[in-house]
Amino acid sequence: MAEQVTLYDTTLRDGMQGEGMSLSAQEKVRVAHALDELGIDLIEAGFPASNPKEAALFELLAGERFEHAAIAAFGMTRRREVAAADDPALQVLAECFAPVCTIVGKTWSLHLEKVTRVDPEENLAMIADSVAFLRGEGKRVIYDAEHFFDAWADDPDYALRCLRAAADAGAENLTLCDTNGATLPPAVGAATAAVVADLGDRVAVGIHTHDDAGLGVATALAAVTQGARLVQGTVNGYGERCGNANLMTVLANLQLKLGYDCVAPEQLGRLTETAHLIDELCNVSPNPNQPYVGANAFAHKGGMHVAGVNTDARTFEHIDPAVVGADRRLLISELSGKGTVAARAREIGADLGPDGAARVAERVKDLEHRGYHLEAADGSFDLLIRKEAGDYEALFGLESWRVIVEKVEGGAVRTEATIKIWVDGERYIRTAEGNGPVNALDRALRDAIRQRHPHLSEIELVNYKVRILDEDKGTGAVTRVLLDASDGTDSWGTIGVSENIIEASWEALVDSLEAGMLPGRLHHRRRRAEREVAPS
Amino acid sequence: MAEQVTLYDTTLRDGMQGEGMSLSAQEKVRVAHALDELGIDLIEAGFPASNPKEAALFELLAGERFEHAAIAAFGMTRRREVAAADDPALQVLAECFAPVCTIVGKTWSLHLEKVTRVDPEENLAMIADSVAFLRGEGKRVIYDAEHFFDAWADDPDYALRCLRAAADAGAENLTLCDTNGATLPPAVGAATAAVVADLGDRVAVGIHTHDDAGLGVATALAAVTQGARLVQGTVNGYGERCGNANLMTVLANLQLKLGYDCVAPEQLGRLTETAHLIDELCNVSPNPNQPYVGANAFAHKGGMHVAGVNTDARTFEHIDPAVVGADRRLLISELSGKGTVAARAREIGADLGPDGAARVAERVKDLEHRGYHLEAADGSFDLLIRKEAGDYEALFGLESWRVIVEKVEGGAVRTEATIKIWVDGERYIRTAEGNGPVNALDRALRDAIRQRHPHLSEIELVNYKVRILDEDKGTGAVTRVLLDASDGTDSWGTIGVSENIIEASWEALVDSLEAGMLPGRLHHRRRRAEREVAPS
Repeated sequence: MAEQVTLYDTTLRDGMQGEGMSLSAQEKVRVAHALDELGIDLIEAGFPASNPKEAALFELLAGERFEHAAIAAFGMTRRREVAAADDPALQVLAECFAPVCTIVGKTWSLHLEKVTRVDPEENLAMIADSVAFLRGEGKRVIYDAEHFFDAWADDPDYALRCLRAAADAGAENLTLCDTNGATLPPAVGAATAAVVADLGDRVAVGIHTHDDAGLGVATALAAVTQGARLVQGTVNGYGERCGNANLMTVLANLQLKLGYDCVAPEQLGRLTETAHLIDELCNVSPNPNQPYVGANAFAHKGGMHVAGVNTDARTFEHIDPAVVGADRRLLISELSGKGTVAARAREIGADLGPDGAARVAERVKDLEHRGYHLEAADGSFDLLIRKEAGDYEALFGLESWRVIVEKVEGGAVRTEATIKIWVDGERYIRTAEGNGPVNALDRALRDAIRQRHPHLSEIELVNYKVRILDEDKGTGAVTRVLLDASDGTDSWGTIGVSENIIEASWEALVDSLEAGMLPGRLHHRRRRAEREVAPS
Repeated sequence: MAEQVTLYDTTLRDGMQGEGMSLSAQEKVRVAHALDELGIDLIEAGFPASNPKEAALFELLAGERFEHAAIAAFGMTRRREVAAADDPALQVLAECFAPVCTIVGKTWSLHLEKVTRVDPEENLAMIADSVAFLRGEGKRVIYDAEHFFDAWADDPDYALRCLRAAADAGAENLTLCDTNGATLPPAVGAATAAVVADLGDRVAVGIHTHDDAGLGVATALAAVTQGARLVQGTVNGYGERCGNANLMTVLANLQLKLGYDCVAPEQLGRLTETAHLIDELCNVSPNPNQPYVGANAFAHKGGMHVAGVNTDARTFEHIDPAVVGADRRLLISELSGKGTVAARAREIGADLGPDGAARVAERVKDLEHRGYHLEAADGSFDLLIRKEAGDYEALFGLESWRVIVEKVEGGAVRTEATIKIWVDGERYIRTAEGNGPVNALDRALRDAIRQRHPHLSEIELVNYKVRILDEDKGTGAVTRVLLDASDGTDSWGTIGVSENIIEASWEALVDSLEAGMLPGRLHHRRRRAEREVAPS
């Protein structure tokens, strides 16, 4: 049987140190459930009473039921020269519902000397007393050895004495932290091996790393290879500076590349979905290049690649994307041919007839030559297929539109758009203002067709990108606009290209609404977080 | 003396495989100069004639002078059953100016069998013939062994025979490629060590890795540790799927953590600036969490951290940020320090008085908070200094402007701009058409002030970039416009920020003309490609 590695998630504590990260207590509970469903063993939720919000979180968590995960509360070793039982923060830990307490303490002489100015012997007593007190209160205790690898390089004897103090006092796990992200994989591996040799017979060893040298995942794996059996990390690598070790990547590597037993195969199949859901909750744009779960992680471009994957996926893929719940994406670019078109047509249930796929592929080639980039615009691509298949119906007939932007005396800027369209034989004229020309056009158009197509009000534009092609032509260059739209369940991308940025935006805008109204719409599903955040 | 490792950048070839990456030939030349200034040894520019744009690039590059870097042209081994000298693609390589040719070839039996269906013996001949032909044409040859580590795992004998064929034929370097990003650092290290043991006495070994398992940097370092002496990677890790090994991170790690000799200290000091400049050219938002160069890489949050750093930076920092040209503080651009302002003021001959530099620095900080990015806009920065120094005079007084864009019946789009301004007490009203709203505004404005400022006609807008900040606010987001202008000798950048894209463009447009008219103009010189791209 494969050996087990315990997965310890610190998204809700260390991950929240990342710039701009913020979650309500309710959102944190949702993150915890998503992690539980993924099969994470330990979820560090924070310090139970560092502020009212954290206190509320622990109150909520106490009432939740998790299938598999245990909640860990986080704190520090006792203050100097105070009995552990009299330390208010340790009392809070002892009283909270969490069965596991993780306490961080010093191991690096330099820190004792320059930062905390605590006597080394007193520091050992602080570690031992704190662990023993929480054990006495019935807690499972994990000791986080802060700055362990720097400490090991500087003064290995003292670093080891700190670990022994925690082990002797009853800690079940000693987690070695590369707090500054300074250490390379071979050094992390060697120090971990030394600790496992010294203490491994009576206590488990864990690893906690950061990505400051771009090696957060590699150092975690190096420690596991040398005997660590618990890995701390955060979802998608959130965290301060360059982030913590990305636990999504670590999990996939441990299970798929190193053969450890971490989660069930069906749980691993939730990896992509979980990563995106938590990005969504944290309001972080998913990194399309993220290992295993990014939108581009299994994207293929060249014709030879596509042919190779079809023959034997191993030729161009390091794992089967399905095992992490990812899609293989064949990028729709001029490099790929009618096979991709036919595959997509089948997926959305469009009948292209004998030569339809070839005609659409020709059209794609022609459009890409003019600056379109359909791999980023699945909605526009679907519309092309629908038009060829003959089951496309325009939402409206355009007579004209006009946008006026003016900067008046005094400096204020005013924007208005007027639109004249025909829907079911009726003419609609609408004018709307906006904070920019595209916003005004969008409002006028929706206002005009809302009556006939009430579903449109659910469609939201969530992302607007502008890229200038041939940038060196100055303001006379061609503009490519990419829009992402969403109806709360699905999301899809559309594109417009023109010398005129307003016309390019208009084109993408119309596509985004029409693609959203397509029959049998089967856009790549992205499960969205529900928006029921209770007021805090 | 420290051992040397050759840095090989493939941003302009493999990096361009990334989703949405696109650079003009002129921009690629700017990237090449930035890499040269950073101390990169080899710059792979692409295949000299895969399309007219690539051909134009090589024509431009042939006329450029680089301090240190050599240009490498990229191609494949000859076609099957064709003499190398008769292979059109190899002929193009032989004829191009680049002193180094990198050719990629198969090493993995599975690929020969399932993808290319080439006989293994013929494949060995293809490798040998191609290398020998290019050597005979006077080229230095690097052999890229595609899928090497998969090949090594499957059929090490054959993989090694492929390498020997290239070495015997005169390749100076064998670069082992983890093309699918499948392999973990220990396996990459072991295979590299075996190759070095077998062939290291007569040929150098290189490494080319990808980030599919989040280990692109770690695998590159593992290979170097086992004897590889050339590392291929891309700026900021651009590339298809999860990207290539990030050469910025690799360089910093090799030099600062492993003690290899790669670039001069003052070149390493350009790392952050170079990474950001190339992001800007590629219209990629810089990753704030990127190791070494990200805006948050040395950001400190907690009070204890800040105090610790002030006492002894080692307590909370893995390296001194200054050695990679990064700032310790969070999100404050290099320009916002008053020292930088004062230095720039001296450079352009502006007298800021005793407190002027501090006031400008405050203003920069405030502007950057609102979405401005003055690092990329030296023209706008100079204007700020001039305004503070009191030797700024507006080119004109604005009364109002108005832009109308309309799509009329029949589908044609018409754009016109009207401008009302005062110059030297006289009122000018001008209307102009354009192919887009900003183009029309530019024309109307120039038409109005041309008489008083004939020098303006020499100023050309050469580059126009749009970035949407807070992209997830859809069309209601804030827009940042960057303009580059040139008078044929100098070029300078300006910036505008607004919810309204037209207003943001207007702001950048006015700055670009005013900065072009500044006394003692001394804009940061950027070596620009001359504009004589032969018609294709």
